[in-house]
Amino acid sequence: MAQKPSIPKGTRDFGPAEMAGRNYIFDTIKSVFRTYGYMPIETPAMENLGTLLGKYGEEGDKLLFRILNSGDAFAGVDFSMYRQEDGGMNSKALSLKVCEKGLRYDLTVPFARFVVQHQNELSFPFKRYQIQPVWRADRPQKGRYREFYQCDADVIGSRSLLNELELVQIVDRVFTLFDVAVTVKINNRKVLAGLAEIAEFPDKVVDITVAIDKIDKIGLDAVEAEMREKGLGDEAIAVIEPVLLLKGSTDSKIGAMREMMSGKSASGLVSETGLKGLDELQELFGLIEAAGISQEAEMDLSLARGLNYYTGAIFEVKAKDYQIGSICGGGRYDNLTGIFGLPDMSGVGISFGADRIYDVLRGLGKFPEAVTSSTDLLFANMGDKEMKYILPVARALREAGIACEIFAEPAKLKKQFDYASRKGIRFMSITGADEMSQNLVNIKNLETGEQVSITRDDVERIIKHIGGEA
Amino acid sequence: MAQKPSIPKGTRDFGPAEMAGRNYIFDTIKSVFRTYGYMPIETPAMENLGTLLGKYGEEGDKLLFRILNSGDAFAGVDFSMYRQEDGGMNSKALSLKVCEKGLRYDLTVPFARFVVQHQNELSFPFKRYQIQPVWRADRPQKGRYREFYQCDADVIGSRSLLNELELVQIVDRVFTLFDVAVTVKINNRKVLAGLAEIAEFPDKVVDITVAIDKIDKIGLDAVEAEMREKGLGDEAIAVIEPVLLLKGSTDSKIGAMREMMSGKSASGLVSETGLKGLDELQELFGLIEAAGISQEAEMDLSLARGLNYYTGAIFEVKAKDYQIGSICGGGRYDNLTGIFGLPDMSGVGISFGADRIYDVLRGLGKFPEAVTSSTDLLFANMGDKEMKYILPVARALREAGIACEIFAEPAKLKKQFDYASRKGIRFMSITGADEMSQNLVNIKNLETGEQVSITRDDVERIIKHIGGEA
Repeated sequence: MAQKPSIPKGTRDFGPAEMAGRNYIFDTIKSVFRTYGYMPIETPAMENLGTLLGKYGEEGDKLLFRILNSGDAFAGVDFSMYRQEDGGMNSKALSLKVCEKGLRYDLTVPFARFVVQHQNELSFPFKRYQIQPVWRADRPQKGRYREFYQCDADVIGSRSLLNELELVQIVDRVFTLFDVAVTVKINNRKVLAGLAEIAEFPDKVVDITVAIDKIDKIGLDAVEAEMREKGLGDEAIAVIEPVLLLKGSTDSKIGAMREMMSGKSASGLVSETGLKGLDELQELFGLIEAAGISQEAEMDLSLARGLNYYTGAIFEVKAKDYQIGSICGGGRYDNLTGIFGLPDMSGVGISFGADRIYDVLRGLGKFPEAVTSSTDLLFANMGDKEMKYILPVARALREAGIACEIFAEPAKLKKQFDYASRKGIRFMSITGADEMSQNLVNIKNLETGEQVSITRDDVERIIKHIGGEA
Repeated sequence: MAQKPSIPKGTRDFGPAEMAGRNYIFDTIKSVFRTYGYMPIETPAMENLGTLLGKYGEEGDKLLFRILNSGDAFAGVDFSMYRQEDGGMNSKALSLKVCEKGLRYDLTVPFARFVVQHQNELSFPFKRYQIQPVWRADRPQKGRYREFYQCDADVIGSRSLLNELELVQIVDRVFTLFDVAVTVKINNRKVLAGLAEIAEFPDKVVDITVAIDKIDKIGLDAVEAEMREKGLGDEAIAVIEPVLLLKGSTDSKIGAMREMMSGKSASGLVSETGLKGLDELQELFGLIEAAGISQEAEMDLSLARGLNYYTGAIFEVKAKDYQIGSICGGGRYDNLTGIFGLPDMSGVGISFGADRIYDVLRGLGKFPEAVTSSTDLLFANMGDKEMKYILPVARALREAGIACEIFAEPAKLKKQFDYASRKGIRFMSITGADEMSQNLVNIKNLETGEQVSITRDDVERIIKHIGGEA
């Protein structure tokens, strides 16, 4: 009996057209990673649950896809141990008993596990990139999937800000190659922590950052009202208000912040952490100027990305001409590998959002024509003899890298043209008895209708004619 | 508390060196697929269990990795329904209740599902390739993993033997590019079925094929003894014996088999199926001759691969100079998509065994040097000023596709040389105050020790010097 075929909700099939676009994105990013000395690694889809649990908060633990133990998973399980007082089952405890593995939730934790497990084989600083799918049992919705690719580059084992510079350069180069104008926004967790310190609310870093983020949207009064709701008093707001009103170049903003952190704010407090963060920002922007970039980079104190784990630089990239969230982001984290027994390894990384970049490139019409192109040339099948006549030509063209097809059966020409048209093939060869008798091959441009005949052995001329490189 | 990091048994991490080799294999195969008009697709790692169950036999069902339903998987499950008479749990039934999804077991069934689900968006014949991992809960052992990549090309919706030819050509080209000598062995299920028919044991196709396979290893007497054990009588053996003794070219073998199938065997029976199979073999070898191939292709009646599902051609590829099993195989199957409601779709495909090909290339030393090479050039870090001086050079080189790194900190030169050496970097630039004062960049060949100084802006000369293409 026939089953109606479907795939699990939140997952996707990618057909040839989508694959072409996605491969263009991944190949471009990979080629840039490579020029900066980043090397690829891959880790298994399944990790031991012990590796994953507790790394993404309680909410994250619930979103892990768990793999039922293979074999007789429930044999020997004493279900009475998992019975709750209300008569139901303790799903959490029982699933830990019958599932020892889970699908990876991101690439960062598997990377940390990889670094610790293979530390004796690696040379540090270790620069790796990794492009693999991850799985999350999130509620599926527009733009949010249960299986999606992450595309990460991280360097571990170096505190040098040269690494931050190189990640900014990678972003700059990638989006320049994509011909997409972006702004690279840069923040530093230490500056935000410093601000919270001199406002005397060191545990309100996130609330303060969110307030800074809203100033352009809702105005000063509304932001201050919100801060009051969050429990910040007038003294704290007096410290933070000048930051909300900061204008001008990154240089002048850093200068103003440095004054504040040095004791010139309303509280008069000094923050060594804040000053350290400003030093880092200043050094990074100095490096960016020395290296030169094509896109725009700016300090943005409102970046609140990953405040729970980033400890230094924070990056976020926005497309200038397309309305969509962040398309790339990252930052520096200290002690990523500590949980697996390797302390004091500082790292910094970025992650490209492939699905959103795909939408941007499609939305702006930035996929190069070659990406969407398919087979270059279709040889019509005019019969057995004709087919054998063109077999060596097709072979030579393919060995030169030209994608050609021979229509599988000697069908009506209309059907063969339709195939070419549906597949977006630009050239067709209709080589019959006439051409054979003169050792020729016909080549027809399906866009212009122009036809030529070329000597069968002159593969170079055929290649040139269809616009390839001989 | 630190956890000792590990990965599930039967799974692997791939570090940069293995990835380089694997990517070389996949990129080469993809580039050849593309020239034959095969287009990439990807399907989700998770499929609904209904899609997977019953497709791989009872044994296969047991080897599926099942995903526990997300959320409260055991809530509302009436466990008494799964209690067996012996007091234990019916794991099979219970796991069906709490797991609705499984990890894909191969790429063929998801492909069939894809074709049926997207039939209205595809143009037929549809040629796709797919390179993705699959998961099997097999007992791990040397060379057998629980997660491994399959690398498949299939065409569906055409019965033309041109498709078989093209798959042989793809195999030919791929292994020629790998510089690995192979034999492409070709058989046809219909010929084996015909032989079983005229031997009057139509249900003993596999036993007869295995007997043919053993003739060179154990000799005529032992093979005949084995056939008798399998229940074949003297009359059947009299029919089969001439096949065991067949020698000579593919042409002469096909000729001899054709005589037998036409009523000239000991039984005097005619097999239309067998004759059809011989026609197909003859046509395919005729096409191979017309197209021309670089490697060796031969008929091999002992190929027993996939006799349960292949219906026409059967392929297997063996390396000539390296002892390992089949490194590529495939065949034609009828009605692959019938189970999902789309009948009468004939297809033919091949699958490259990436893990074994990796072993062959490594064993024979066939990985090109460029594959194992890493970063091209390391700029030593001689201090802040020197680092800023070389930043624009590094940027220009990277934009030209040269992989360079700048050592992250101004460390001792010995440490920087060690890094280059461990990472296999061939060139190093030690550019200090002297070079800076003359606007030069130093380039040292770490293999020969030779050093030159090149004008900082002459990026083309730097690229040429380190062996790149300007």
